[in-house]
Amino acid sequence: MDIEALRTANPEHWMKATAIRTLTLDAVAAANSGHSGMPMGMADVATVLFEKHLKFDAKNPDWFDRDRFILSAGHGSMLMYSLLYLTGYEDMTLEQVKNFRQWGAITAGHPEYGHAKGIETTTGPLGQGISNAVGFAMAEASLRGRYGKKIVDHYTYVIAGDGCLMEGVSQEAIALAGRQELGKLIVLWDNNNITIDGTVDLTDRTNQVARFKASGWHVIEIDGHDPAQIDDAISKAKVTKKPSMIACKTHIALGHAAQDTSKGHGALTNADQLAAAKALYGWNFGPFEIPADVKAQWEAIGTRGQAERAAWEARFAEASASRQAEFTRMMTGEAPKKLSATIKALKKQISEDAPKVATRKASEMALEVINPIAPETIGGSADLTGSNNTKTGDLGVFSPEDRKGRYVYYGIREHGMAAAMNGMALHGGVRPYGGTFLCFADYARGSMRLSALMGVPVTYVMTHDSIGLGEDGPTHQPVEHLAYCRATPNTYLIRPADAVETAEAWEIALSSKSTPTVMALSRQNLPTVRTEHKLKNLTAQGGYVLAEAEGKRQAIIMATGSEVEIAMEAKKLLEAEGIGTRVVSMPCMELFDAQDEAYRKRVLPAGPVRVAVEAAVRQPWDKYLLGERGRENKAAFVGMEGFGASAPAETLYEKFGITAANVAQKVKDLL
Amino acid sequence: MDIEALRTANPEHWMKATAIRTLTLDAVAAANSGHSGMPMGMADVATVLFEKHLKFDAKNPDWFDRDRFILSAGHGSMLMYSLLYLTGYEDMTLEQVKNFRQWGAITAGHPEYGHAKGIETTTGPLGQGISNAVGFAMAEASLRGRYGKKIVDHYTYVIAGDGCLMEGVSQEAIALAGRQELGKLIVLWDNNNITIDGTVDLTDRTNQVARFKASGWHVIEIDGHDPAQIDDAISKAKVTKKPSMIACKTHIALGHAAQDTSKGHGALTNADQLAAAKALYGWNFGPFEIPADVKAQWEAIGTRGQAERAAWEARFAEASASRQAEFTRMMTGEAPKKLSATIKALKKQISEDAPKVATRKASEMALEVINPIAPETIGGSADLTGSNNTKTGDLGVFSPEDRKGRYVYYGIREHGMAAAMNGMALHGGVRPYGGTFLCFADYARGSMRLSALMGVPVTYVMTHDSIGLGEDGPTHQPVEHLAYCRATPNTYLIRPADAVETAEAWEIALSSKSTPTVMALSRQNLPTVRTEHKLKNLTAQGGYVLAEAEGKRQAIIMATGSEVEIAMEAKKLLEAEGIGTRVVSMPCMELFDAQDEAYRKRVLPAGPVRVAVEAAVRQPWDKYLLGERGRENKAAFVGMEGFGASAPAETLYEKFGITAANVAQKVKDLL
Repeated sequence: MDIEALRTANPEHWMKATAIRTLTLDAVAAANSGHSGMPMGMADVATVLFEKHLKFDAKNPDWFDRDRFILSAGHGSMLMYSLLYLTGYEDMTLEQVKNFRQWGAITAGHPEYGHAKGIETTTGPLGQGISNAVGFAMAEASLRGRYGKKIVDHYTYVIAGDGCLMEGVSQEAIALAGRQELGKLIVLWDNNNITIDGTVDLTDRTNQVARFKASGWHVIEIDGHDPAQIDDAISKAKVTKKPSMIACKTHIALGHAAQDTSKGHGALTNADQLAAAKALYGWNFGPFEIPADVKAQWEAIGTRGQAERAAWEARFAEASASRQAEFTRMMTGEAPKKLSATIKALKKQISEDAPKVATRKASEMALEVINPIAPETIGGSADLTGSNNTKTGDLGVFSPEDRKGRYVYYGIREHGMAAAMNGMALHGGVRPYGGTFLCFADYARGSMRLSALMGVPVTYVMTHDSIGLGEDGPTHQPVEHLAYCRATPNTYLIRPADAVETAEAWEIALSSKSTPTVMALSRQNLPTVRTEHKLKNLTAQGGYVLAEAEGKRQAIIMATGSEVEIAMEAKKLLEAEGIGTRVVSMPCMELFDAQDEAYRKRVLPAGPVRVAVEAAVRQPWDKYLLGERGRENKAAFVGMEGFGASAPAETLYEKFGITAANVAQKVKDLL
Repeated sequence: MDIEALRTANPEHWMKATAIRTLTLDAVAAANSGHSGMPMGMADVATVLFEKHLKFDAKNPDWFDRDRFILSAGHGSMLMYSLLYLTGYEDMTLEQVKNFRQWGAITAGHPEYGHAKGIETTTGPLGQGISNAVGFAMAEASLRGRYGKKIVDHYTYVIAGDGCLMEGVSQEAIALAGRQELGKLIVLWDNNNITIDGTVDLTDRTNQVARFKASGWHVIEIDGHDPAQIDDAISKAKVTKKPSMIACKTHIALGHAAQDTSKGHGALTNADQLAAAKALYGWNFGPFEIPADVKAQWEAIGTRGQAERAAWEARFAEASASRQAEFTRMMTGEAPKKLSATIKALKKQISEDAPKVATRKASEMALEVINPIAPETIGGSADLTGSNNTKTGDLGVFSPEDRKGRYVYYGIREHGMAAAMNGMALHGGVRPYGGTFLCFADYARGSMRLSALMGVPVTYVMTHDSIGLGEDGPTHQPVEHLAYCRATPNTYLIRPADAVETAEAWEIALSSKSTPTVMALSRQNLPTVRTEHKLKNLTAQGGYVLAEAEGKRQAIIMATGSEVEIAMEAKKLLEAEGIGTRVVSMPCMELFDAQDEAYRKRVLPAGPVRVAVEAAVRQPWDKYLLGERGRENKAAFVGMEGFGASAPAETLYEKFGITAANVAQKVKDLL
């Protein structure tokens, strides 16, 4: 690469872009770790994007109708931090840049949502950012369709690397984006032909241009170091009705000794090589030093969007007060005002009617009353709409023809769905929920973990939550999934026992501001166990006394979901023999553990023997079975020890011993 | 669709194919559940494949050089069961077909590996079969490259549906197959334009032909109900050097009232509609009845490969005795004879040298001595070769140019790698291991669960196994992953403390016949704690006394991996204060739990307080902390309660309180 030619062709651009390169080199050298090559290669693209196209206001970074910029190749985080610092984001000080990858700094190894303004999503696990971006663009299209261009009308830009495109989730995302004709989604592919193990063609010879076109994208190929080509390509991408992919041919670690090699990825900390690169750049400044004129040019870029922001605020102010209020509520993630009353009314009705329904059906019953009062909800399913019961009558279908529709057919793309939901929630103004079978949480794990890590309140509607799904067999029967959702920090795993608890679960999910909810719902019908109406949301306490012992309390049976019915049956058997038995419903361990100790001890007092019953592995239950005074010889578990099998559900419960008789016998064995 | 035309065009073919259709309809009606439409749509393709191309011998289903047939669209399991019954597989009796989806039957809802001969892999979770198939084809190519065409030379056929192609993992698989030029892989796509939620174009308008071509595949489009076109397409696919995708335009639920609709997927149990379909087919027979001439034609197909099998056996017998012995050992999955002695020698050397190395490096040290004596190993990494330390000097690189190479550059495709490894292990003759960061087990979960469910002994080399990876931050730092591997049935999660335990872990992994191993390995250097050489594989006991209390035993500290060093430091601090402390290394809970009770009580006797230390969540430890006599007030845990952070590793351990001082303090607090 002829650096001299680049320098002289457009000196002002060169200096701006090279400020990114040198900040990256200096920060990585200071941290003695980090990825240098990608920011150095994509500095030109990012510079043109920020200078000429990205709609943003560095001093008002949360302005709702800003363009979104997502660094899917999150390892190149110094590209992001450099841009934020240079354009004048107030929290991104030079001190923060100097503390790259250090404890307490907002400049983490990979961009972490919530650390710094301007980081729209957490990236680093490859393929996530580009897939989140599809959700951003869908949220934008949905809100634009419903609230008009005056309020919502912006682009979503993504920088993605080879790794992002190799990860399978990206195929799910690009196919979905193509189908949905997300014309305001623009992906800038860092086509540098280098991965960690070597050149890309060591592992991949996919023609990415053809692949994107096959999924309905507009594709342009450019020299990623030529500002005019970059500018022109983005201009064209903005006007096409298709999502756009701009293949930017670049040189990783441009101008460094490691240029165009897989070594160019990593920590370029050699002082001599660093100095040589700076000399080649014509950059005669100290570490972290940006000449005043270059910084001034960058800061001017940071203020470029002020007028647009002000104009948007003026337009927003023109909307009716009620519309402003609704939109503001949705933007800030507040639950609908009517939610609490709506849920209470539904609970009262259910307690009176005492229907025997699957909790997946109960979830639909809740959504039928929620969706009309919650315009922020956007439902969907990964091709299991009729099984997940996620589509209610009034939603309409989100499509290029109807952006007002609020139901998304995601296709058979659990990972892509989860990533898109993260993107929608991060965009704001909408609150996504989406369904699949609980077992296929496995496919979505990569994004579900990020929901928890970022603290975005998406709702996973996971039906067919145990061997109770029956004949489909062990590939479809979760046994370890409840455990792993509970092991994941900042995740509500709620497994409601009946339609009342399901309604309560939805109230929790829709009121959550920073925790995702995974609902584990049954395929099979379950009786209403909460036949006495209570205004209070008992599920929000995580666990509670569902039925008190009639005689002297000798046993406590804990259960969740479909096994609460079994616990209640076991209680009957035991009480008939004079064994006073309390039943504790434990729909959400995380919420129970968050209660104060006094409450927890009231629900699970020392003394009685304890048996837990759940059609899953024991691991998460040990703390309740063995803790406090519940010693090994005072506690037992009835559940699964291995994988399930294919047979009708009732047969499976019988064969795996998850029965009331077995639970009652365990209690008697312990007494 | 003009059924009459199909019937008359080729009556003999029609009757054979329709035997599949009617068995499917009858079995689904009997079970009152199951997927009918796919077998009805793909019956013609399957019939031609089995009749004219598939190399198999129904009476000798395990013959090593048979072609492999994989039903990636596993919900259409009745297609498989029909074919196996009709061609005369001895275990697939009519009784089994009649017991479709019932307890104890080999005819599970989805094809389960190990249930019936001819089921080469468990399918049902979409996208897995096609991705396994890439592994099958790689194993075949590898063995063919090394042992010659006389011993190994067969095709891998796949029937895949729209769902398989939408799942992201399929993109990883097809790109890998294209890059590796797996010419003997032939995918038959059931292009019926129907998913559960509606027509495919509701969610996807990807041009699959263009997409496969973009990844280097040979593609043919045909009418999937025309036997001549099917035959011709397969013939062409067999001779191309590229992997082949045959797009078979079909009608789901052909001839049924639900034909060409999403209802055609599901349980077509309506008796009138079933009768109408049979009438349209010209099928005048009772339920499960196959006319004798049709059955005879099918059974002839089942014997078609007998001569080929016999010829193969004759060729195999010509090989040298040592070659036969080696190949037979590899086929049956026996560990190399020299393995035990090799590991012992390595352990002795390590105990003497006492190196301070990361366990990922220790893993490489083990592989350096294992790979030369274990020709069955095929290593690889998802683009983290240098970080996972998976490539040893002698392996060579597997590629179209060098099929003798035993190292696979999988690219940034964790899920595709895991699925391919399952396929290789199922093919037999090879034993795959592959690496990524432990955190990215999330991406591979779908296939890792299937390793466990199928019981295939693949090895996952998961490095960077905690906050100890440092600056990359929380997206790369597993905290819940150890818990979920342990929660998954039939999975060895081994987290070795030093190079000796790592060597022992490899012996376990390579000796395993029906359990996958997940190795959790450190990025950071760890001292050798096993400085006293023992012949016995202590890791195989799961947990053991690493260091006994010097004074009166008042405390037991349990730890794994990188935290064993911390436990040993804490012991020192405590012993200095006269508190006798035992340290238990617990590299594999599953193996420890499998020991007899007497052993477990010897290692973890009642009495002393217990503290566990692991840089991960507590969930899996409760059983040891709270069980036996270890009550809440006698036990504590030092580990992670939430996600990690970006900073140098030492800082993170300090900030999260995972230190020897803290462990020692916990012990003192409890005493």
